Amino acid sequence: MTAMKLGLIGLGKMGGNMRERIRQAGHTVIGYDRDPELSDVGSLTELVAGLEGPRVVWVMVPAGGPTQSVVDELGDLLEAGDTVVDGGNSRWTDDEKHAEELAAKGIGFVDAGVSGGVWGLENGYALMVGGDKEHVDRLQPIFEALKPEGPYGYVHAGKVGAGHFSKMVHNGIEYAMMQAYAEGWELLQAADSVTDVREIFRSWEQGTVIRSWLLDLAVNALDKDEHLEQLRGYAEDSGEGRWTVEAAIDNAVPLPAITASLFARFASRQDDSPQMKMIAALRNQFGGHSVESAK
Amino acid sequence: MTAMKLGLIGLGKMGGNMRERIRQAGHTVIGYDRDPELSDVGSLTELVAGLEGPRVVWVMVPAGGPTQSVVDELGDLLEAGDTVVDGGNSRWTDDEKHAEELAAKGIGFVDAGVSGGVWGLENGYALMVGGDKEHVDRLQPIFEALKPEGPYGYVHAGKVGAGHFSKMVHNGIEYAMMQAYAEGWELLQAADSVTDVREIFRSWEQGTVIRSWLLDLAVNALDKDEHLEQLRGYAEDSGEGRWTVEAAIDNAVPLPAITASLFARFASRQDDSPQMKMIAALRNQFGGHSVESAK
Amino acid sequence: MTAMKLGLIGLGKMGGNMRERIRQAGHTVIGYDRDPELSDVGSLTELVAGLEGPRVVWVMVPAGGPTQSVVDELGDLLEAGDTVVDGGNSRWTDDEKHAEELAAKGIGFVDAGVSGGVWGLENGYALMVGGDKEHVDRLQPIFEALKPEGPYGYVHAGKVGAGHFSKMVHNGIEYAMMQAYAEGWELLQAADSVTDVREIFRSWEQGTVIRSWLLDLAVNALDKDEHLEQLRGYAEDSGEGRWTVEAAIDNAVPLPAITASLFARFASRQDDSPQMKMIAALRNQFGGHSVESAK
Amino acid sequence: MTAMKLGLIGLGKMGGNMRERIRQAGHTVIGYDRDPELSDVGSLTELVAGLEGPRVVWVMVPAGGPTQSVVDELGDLLEAGDTVVDGGNSRWTDDEKHAEELAAKGIGFVDAGVSGGVWGLENGYALMVGGDKEHVDRLQPIFEALKPEGPYGYVHAGKVGAGHFSKMVHNGIEYAMMQAYAEGWELLQAADSVTDVREIFRSWEQGTVIRSWLLDLAVNALDKDEHLEQLRGYAEDSGEGRWTVEAAIDNAVPLPAITASLFARFASRQDDSPQMKMIAALRNQFGGHSVESAK
Repeated sequence: MTAMKLGLIGLGKMGGNMRERIRQAGHTVIGYDRDPELSDVGSLTELVAGLEGPRVVWVMVPAGGPTQSVVDELGDLLEAGDTVVDGGNSRWTDDEKHAEELAAKGIGFVDAGVSGGVWGLENGYALMVGGDKEHVDRLQPIFEALKPEGPYGYVHAGKVGAGHFSKMVHNGIEYAMMQAYAEGWELLQAADSVTDVREIFRSWEQGTVIRSWLLDLAVNALDKDEHLEQLRGYAEDSGEGRWTVEAAIDNAVPLPAITASLFARFASRQDDSPQMKMIAALRNQFGGHSVESAK
Repeated sequence: MTAMKLGLIGLGKMGGNMRERIRQAGHTVIGYDRDPELSDVGSLTELVAGLEGPRVVWVMVPAGGPTQSVVDELGDLLEAGDTVVDGGNSRWTDDEKHAEELAAKGIGFVDAGVSGGVWGLENGYALMVGGDKEHVDRLQPIFEALKPEGPYGYVHAGKVGAGHFSKMVHNGIEYAMMQAYAEGWELLQAADSVTDVREIFRSWEQGTVIRSWLLDLAVNALDKDEHLEQLRGYAEDSGEGRWTVEAAIDNAVPLPAITASLFARFASRQDDSPQMKMIAALRNQFGGHSVESAK
Repeated sequence: MTAMKLGLIGLGKMGGNMRERIRQAGHTVIGYDRDPELSDVGSLTELVAGLEGPRVVWVMVPAGGPTQSVVDELGDLLEAGDTVVDGGNSRWTDDEKHAEELAAKGIGFVDAGVSGGVWGLENGYALMVGGDKEHVDRLQPIFEALKPEGPYGYVHAGKVGAGHFSKMVHNGIEYAMMQAYAEGWELLQAADSVTDVREIFRSWEQGTVIRSWLLDLAVNALDKDEHLEQLRGYAEDSGEGRWTVEAAIDNAVPLPAITASLFARFASRQDDSPQMKMIAALRNQFGGHSVESAK
Repeated sequence: MTAMKLGLIGLGKMGGNMRERIRQAGHTVIGYDRDPELSDVGSLTELVAGLEGPRVVWVMVPAGGPTQSVVDELGDLLEAGDTVVDGGNSRWTDDEKHAEELAAKGIGFVDAGVSGGVWGLENGYALMVGGDKEHVDRLQPIFEALKPEGPYGYVHAGKVGAGHFSKMVHNGIEYAMMQAYAEGWELLQAADSVTDVREIFRSWEQGTVIRSWLLDLAVNALDKDEHLEQLRGYAEDSGEGRWTVEAAIDNAVPLPAITASLFARFASRQDDSPQMKMIAALRNQFGGHSVESAK
């Protein structure tokens, strides 16, 4: 293995752990974060100065404005022959813009979808990468350091954008898988004949068609709180589920289960449902059905 | 027109108004209800005694047990050649049972789906009828009295069960139409650029593809309460939406919009969503995403 | 009524009929179309020259590129104080761009969603309008000419974009209403007990909760072809259904019935379903279930 | 371990493998099948005669009529104190009937949902069991023989019916998980930027949130046929998905993702979609949109 020197921007929950895993693999990482407690250097300029050409800088900041700002700054600080990797949760449609902006200065661009969450430091991060082969190849030692051991967990998915697109679809699938277990759990909880839903879930962890890591996590959660009484049925969405549905619409691909899962999250966040007010109003209009008044 | 003599069992909101409309058409109605204040006679025996053979008795009581009891009683009280009409909201699968039970005694059976709600007394009731031609024909004067004027509002839909089946599908369609307006209303309410959703709905009442009686009712409701602030987003379901989905499953017919409308009602009645607790639990497990605690 | 002089660009099926209806109301219309057979003038320059300031020009060309081109040209040809109306099917997100571009030259902008299809010439067009009051007011005589008689069919829905947004939601609702009737029709066709689905639909045209203009059209279609045997189950989508779902996603509004209707159209256009190939492959993998080979 | 003697009725793909696995564990199995080539004995009478009281007989025949027949016959052949296990895919609502029928003769009843498919012989079968503790306990050595090694793969889920109910929900979850991967696969296949969908799926097998046994199977399938060109997008359903949705309706539990998955299978089996014919007919009616003619 060739030890590399990497600039890493963004040292939050994900970035911080990634810095540690890359260092454990023997590479040098200069990390920058706006929080001085986390940062190795005082500025992006300092970070760039600490690297030698051809430089490689990994960006791990929130999608949208923050990533755009960092890409703009790096465009000014880096030189032709350097490479920028966006490992954040950017929308794939941003990647081509960033690639063009940097390409105008001779700087390479790679997009990397990163999966693994809080377990990544220990187990490795699954990586889905998009970009030109020459840029992707330059990053290979870092990808090796981050990915899980063994033949899986890394793919060069296609050209610029394909990494984030693949990660986005991964998350869309994740939404529907979670929804699948959640629907099954609610139905079992509702059934009279069933006495121990947690043990049913546990029994499924081996030998069944539906065994999975998510199922293992569900059992972990039920072991902490058998009926999830400590939680509210409220779920945020990170944006990637939305983009998945939008990409499906762009491509005229029907996506009923993933979209149902996204909508279930939207609904979970409403204190009262405006659309169901209208249903109640209509029922009252034509049938004289009684309605419930707002509190 | 031949004036008829009809027995009518069940004089609630629907049955009471139907009695009035049939009488207004010049027929004689002997009505029975468990509530003596509503009833013309003291018992079913008395009702049957007041009719002359071949007797015609219209049953307008709640589906399931109550209808079954009345059919059983009528089987004992009536004679061969008489006819029973079930105009309640029975599940179509009950009709064949009732028809067989009565046919064993030579009594005819007709099932009638009745639409029109509280507006039926004035506008007439739409009728969907199932049964053998000979039994249906006998009822024709009563059907004429109940239905709206003009060429619509009545159909002999097929054999026994077809009347309630058609009414059930009518209600399934109704669920999805209501859901359609409700979704559109919520989306317009959420849009920044839109300032007057009620007037948009009102403008649609003529000249648009989506004009309908339900739309008129929606505007009525918004005129009473522009943002439906007096209502809670809570909707019961009467059973016919459930049966529609079950019939679709029996026939392997995909019914995505109607089923989505039914599920939206189920969800509207949950104070907290068990399945979304599981989603929250899983997000917390793999991503360390924060969760909201139950109150 | 003040007779107005209007420039109208785009004289296709919609624009041509609108020209006729506006003229019938006593206004002067100078129409331009790329097809010289339809056009009143030879060029946009000629059209603008034929109007007197403050000029009003109605654009009725396909959304996207064509509308953008015309707006650009009009920006060059018109003068401060003139007004442009986009009555095409533009996405509401385009409206603000167009308004800003024209406002920079002192030209007003109004967006108008127009419903009514081939029936509009006779019955009038429902109009949903967005823009500043001063620009909208200037158009009032034209809106009066186009809209149906009576108190409906016109609304000033809000600021720029609100007209197209409202029309888009109208179309989203339309998708789900059509899907509602279509699902009900398929289920009735599949039921053993039902003998005459067309007459059931016809009976619903009056006295029912689900009576509507779309239902009337369904009966018209069934009168021409009782079992729709002449048609293939294939449906295009015009874009507005897609935008409705995207707007819902932007606003975190769950839209299950409308989205299901859109996805049903996507699926209808696939000769074979890639996702169902994967389902078949998985069933074969774990269960040894037999699969059907591609033809 | 106490070696047991078990009667096993139904030696098809599942039953045959289960006989082998139980024998490998050291128990004696007398198998009966209508196919003499597979059967150990010539009749049920002979099978029962070969066992000693208290006898245990495992039924592994198709749900519905065949299972009912065998239960009826066993009711006549067995004696008080014996136990019948239904390990087939019976609907949970049948279990209570069977239990009552046998209880009237003092015969115990246990329902067992069995998962594992063609891989069960080697890996073990996951078992979900319902019934009274005394009957379930008697079967423990057989359950031990069938289940996978380790702490998972077996649960006593509740009273009679709970085993099949749990297995049914397992299969409902399975439908939605398969649909999740299938939707993601179709979307990736449709994306321009993505060049190697199979390798993306393979990369997900480790380190991702969505890793699972079904994902492994998907990769197996893609390794045999990268774009699934040999398959048609056609999927049967075994009944348990339907029952899951029906159980959800009974319990007023919204099940959008699982139901969407079921409906996608229904649609996959239609050569042409009746409901989309109606959509096409309506579009033609109001918009003059062109339609595609049936072939």
